[in-house]
Amino acid sequence: MRSANPAAIGLDVGGTDIKGGVVAADGSIRVSRTIATDADRGPKHVIERIIELCQELHGAAAGSEVVGVGLGMPGSIRVVEGLAVAPPNLPGWDEVSVAAPLSRALGLPVRLENDANAAALGEHWRGAGRGARHLVLLTLGTGIGGGIILDGDLHRGCRENAGEVGHMIVEPGGRACPCGQLGCLERYASASSTAARAEEALASGEASALRDVHARGVAITAEDVVGAAQAGDGLAQRIWDETCRYLAVACVNLQHLFNFERIIFAGGMSAAGTTLVGPVREHFKRMMWPDRGDHPEILAAELGSRAGMLGAASLLLRSGATTKGSA
Amino acid sequence: MRSANPAAIGLDVGGTDIKGGVVAADGSIRVSRTIATDADRGPKHVIERIIELCQELHGAAAGSEVVGVGLGMPGSIRVVEGLAVAPPNLPGWDEVSVAAPLSRALGLPVRLENDANAAALGEHWRGAGRGARHLVLLTLGTGIGGGIILDGDLHRGCRENAGEVGHMIVEPGGRACPCGQLGCLERYASASSTAARAEEALASGEASALRDVHARGVAITAEDVVGAAQAGDGLAQRIWDETCRYLAVACVNLQHLFNFERIIFAGGMSAAGTTLVGPVREHFKRMMWPDRGDHPEILAAELGSRAGMLGAASLLLRSGATTKGSA
Repeated sequence: MRSANPAAIGLDVGGTDIKGGVVAADGSIRVSRTIATDADRGPKHVIERIIELCQELHGAAAGSEVVGVGLGMPGSIRVVEGLAVAPPNLPGWDEVSVAAPLSRALGLPVRLENDANAAALGEHWRGAGRGARHLVLLTLGTGIGGGIILDGDLHRGCRENAGEVGHMIVEPGGRACPCGQLGCLERYASASSTAARAEEALASGEASALRDVHARGVAITAEDVVGAAQAGDGLAQRIWDETCRYLAVACVNLQHLFNFERIIFAGGMSAAGTTLVGPVREHFKRMMWPDRGDHPEILAAELGSRAGMLGAASLLLRSGATTKGSA
Repeated sequence: MRSANPAAIGLDVGGTDIKGGVVAADGSIRVSRTIATDADRGPKHVIERIIELCQELHGAAAGSEVVGVGLGMPGSIRVVEGLAVAPPNLPGWDEVSVAAPLSRALGLPVRLENDANAAALGEHWRGAGRGARHLVLLTLGTGIGGGIILDGDLHRGCRENAGEVGHMIVEPGGRACPCGQLGCLERYASASSTAARAEEALASGEASALRDVHARGVAITAEDVVGAAQAGDGLAQRIWDETCRYLAVACVNLQHLFNFERIIFAGGMSAAGTTLVGPVREHFKRMMWPDRGDHPEILAAELGSRAGMLGAASLLLRSGATTKGSA
């Protein structure tokens, strides 16, 4: 029998911290906690911390019946088996069973999902993707992840590896990516590659306000580049425009292939808001087949760091939250 | 009541000719005819020719009960309204209602579909895509079209424009495409652009057996390039390798985004068979994220010019032949 107040625990497991919350069926977060991941202590320890966090959240969820736990985690996820496969930022995780030990310890169903997919579900449920039928969410951080929703459900593909937007080749023979490919989108348009391209430009000797960051003895971040570009710094404006231009190339390609209703930018760099989506929209409009006339909305995400938690919880709560394309 | 011998008329309407056939529920073609399109006489005339062809096929379909007509046509198709929107090679067609007048004249349900989508359905039903859950078919001809099947059904997107594989940007700022974009895949890897790149290389004065084609007073075709490459001609090998390399870039991007089981090359240039798919597979293997380990099968289509007719007929015959992503 369906509870009168169903809720689910949603977790967003990252390399630095784990965000968890009890999410009601209407998408409201009843209670939330953030703890350090302690990733260096290995998967067994992290799973124990997740169990403790879930128990604490469960205890704090007075008045709600917790129907299960959803986790978003970086890297490849084998959804059906509940396995995490070598997630970046989590050393020592190689095909680690996550769903089964959690489910045993908590006595609840547990669903595992890739973190970008979870964020896409979250934004689709309660954020910038509300009401859209087909959308893609790009997470702009150290790398670029993606979550693709078609007809309201995740598209995972035949081995659950769909949505790897960051590894689209946008410059054949271009910059080397740690994945082994050349010219991946994330080598041009992630937060870290935006910062790295700014460092390269500075190394060439060009004048820039970004040298003040170096003078403080710290590395340049994408946020510094955005700030300097907004303040009129020529080098920063050029680097930022290049980031936005490559994101527009990705949008053109995504639009031709999927014909989305919305393209949503999430992750740290999306905090730039209109400074990000404004130039991406302009480049998109300039690049895209002019007569096509069915441009998607290009938007910044709305839920910030809550998207993953909400999306993970939604795996247990949404009607029609079944997933498409899993094996 | 379902007929004991249901069949559908499938049509593939091109700029030069119209291929039609009566297709049984098992995919066998009971009877087929090809007529000239007479495209220069405008849409009204062409629709009359289609009606006559359907009547002739219907009359010849002894023993089968024809349940409807499916048409594959080039260009944008508004599936729900049954409209063709400015198809290339069909002058004077601008938002022409096709399904309604055919249905009235024939007294049968009529379904309209983009020709690459119809070919994808055909290959999925009875060709190189049999049994695959997620696949893309690329038609390599004057341009490059695409049809995307996810979970066994067409993916059309929010305005039925999905699958425009030929207009993925593979070289930002690259060759100008008639669509108005720069660097589209079809400017590098279609049959016509393969021939055009060979002509450009010859114009630079380089020695090549392809000059013999010019000596015969005709223009070079992609088939000439394939033939000369197979015979060891250096210029032709370089041009052909470039075609295959760009197709591999497209395959890498398609695979990261959709995680397909199969990628199928169709259209005129796919007649090159292993001379096409062999080098594409090699480039793909060399370019693609090495640890990903879930490469799709890259195959040549099996049905040749029958794919569109079969796929169009399948719109009326296949169980689960409903379409996904239409408005």
